[in-house]
Amino acid sequence: MQLIDGKAVAEQVKQEIAAQVAAMVERGEKRPHLAAILVGHDGGSETYVAAKVKACEVCGFKSTLIRFESDITEDVLLAKVAELNNDPDVDGFIVQLPLPKHINEQHVIEAIDYRKDVDGFHPINVGRMSIGLPCFISATPNGIMELLKRYNIETRGKKAVVLGRSNIVGKPMASLLMQKSNPGDCTVTVCHSHTVGIKEECLQADIIVAALGQPGFVKADMVKEGAVIIDVGTTRVPDATKKSGFRLCGDVQFDEVAPKCSFITPVPGGVGPMTICSLMKNTLLAGQKCIYE
Amino acid sequence: MQLIDGKAVAEQVKQEIAAQVAAMVERGEKRPHLAAILVGHDGGSETYVAAKVKACEVCGFKSTLIRFESDITEDVLLAKVAELNNDPDVDGFIVQLPLPKHINEQHVIEAIDYRKDVDGFHPINVGRMSIGLPCFISATPNGIMELLKRYNIETRGKKAVVLGRSNIVGKPMASLLMQKSNPGDCTVTVCHSHTVGIKEECLQADIIVAALGQPGFVKADMVKEGAVIIDVGTTRVPDATKKSGFRLCGDVQFDEVAPKCSFITPVPGGVGPMTICSLMKNTLLAGQKCIYE
Repeated sequence: MQLIDGKAVAEQVKQEIAAQVAAMVERGEKRPHLAAILVGHDGGSETYVAAKVKACEVCGFKSTLIRFESDITEDVLLAKVAELNNDPDVDGFIVQLPLPKHINEQHVIEAIDYRKDVDGFHPINVGRMSIGLPCFISATPNGIMELLKRYNIETRGKKAVVLGRSNIVGKPMASLLMQKSNPGDCTVTVCHSHTVGIKEECLQADIIVAALGQPGFVKADMVKEGAVIIDVGTTRVPDATKKSGFRLCGDVQFDEVAPKCSFITPVPGGVGPMTICSLMKNTLLAGQKCIYE
Repeated sequence: MQLIDGKAVAEQVKQEIAAQVAAMVERGEKRPHLAAILVGHDGGSETYVAAKVKACEVCGFKSTLIRFESDITEDVLLAKVAELNNDPDVDGFIVQLPLPKHINEQHVIEAIDYRKDVDGFHPINVGRMSIGLPCFISATPNGIMELLKRYNIETRGKKAVVLGRSNIVGKPMASLLMQKSNPGDCTVTVCHSHTVGIKEECLQADIIVAALGQPGFVKADMVKEGAVIIDVGTTRVPDATKKSGFRLCGDVQFDEVAPKCSFITPVPGGVGPMTICSLMKNTLLAGQKCIYE
């Protein structure tokens, strides 16, 4: 069993990005600039955005954090989105989700200029990914593809089971794994809350991507000997022994599953760090105008 | 075994559309208008476009057929697309594919205003479908969903195997079948040229959608007793006994597979008529401004 060290890969990718940024700046080009809008004070969102800002520093990006209180109106938020769309200094930006309930997240996502949509949530980017055209690919599935690539995990003709059909993980993950590419070319099955016989589905899988948000869902008796396990779960479980008062719990029962695997990602330190790293990669591409003019 | 009569369903749907159009016209509203661009004289394309024009008549739509010779430049074609985009009388239009090799099909597809893209090929419509937002859904998968609905075929929790991962059938079909909806909520597996053990995959399926373009690929020993079989194949096979010189051949070995099925679509007369019918449905929605303003 080989542990997939997402933290180490993420550091390496960020160093590669930093080297490219340094070369860009040396050539007199603009330093890529990522802006992030944070609404309210949700604990998880604060943590994620802080990590993104820090990652920008490591990569040599300019970053701007724009904060709003949670009682902001949708119109004011949309006005800020329009401002960032039109700001030539901003190469890409994100609106940290979730948003307060009185704001329609889909309106906000669609208001973002797809050429600056480094989260890859805009329908144009989702559609282009499905078709196989250059686009901003959403961060978590893109990070997982990068892990498969860097660990030279064979995917062609392998059977991949994706647990979960969310718009930001399950669906794009399935789309990327079935794509004519390397990594890719998997036979992909998507399972979800209505799936009958999920254990039998998992037992057939060479690769399982678990993105249900159900701590410890995948158990040893659901996993084939030698399978590759990618754990996307990051549920916060109360834990008095931790300074933060909680620990992150994956969708996989790591202790019992790991001995059966060829490769497995831990939680934390697996997929999580790669997600932010993918956002950095998208920001670099945005800064270089690699995907859109 | 029940034969799914796509021809009859398509007729019924077109009559329903015609009734709605008659009511619209009676209310003094504009008659929906579909335009089609046909480049060159490919036999298949001529047939499809003629059938679309005829279906427009049945539905009570205004239709316009715009013809170009196959040596048309991409620029001239794009200029026509722009003209149709800006023509307020045209509610929706299609550019019949395939196009001559010197024209980039993707450029043309992306040049079409997504609000008039009744073929549902524009990345915005593809992305919105994936996310589950209102959009123009591409015709063949949409027609298949309509058949499942009209025949009250249970899909929730069923195992669906999609054979083929094309952008116009396999991928959108998988997307629709896994969607939280009815029909939908299937556990979906997508198989393709790199799939290992395609027979075993098919044997597990409650529903098989065959869209490989390989005549007679699905045989009786690949099908579970009681399965639902949807045959998207329409390969032209030379046949001297036919006036046209060919016959349409499905991806399913109908004679041997049909006795094992609960439901099966024939070729011709199954999915084919529904494809044009879905285009009519999208044109109606475009005329009613139901999806986009």
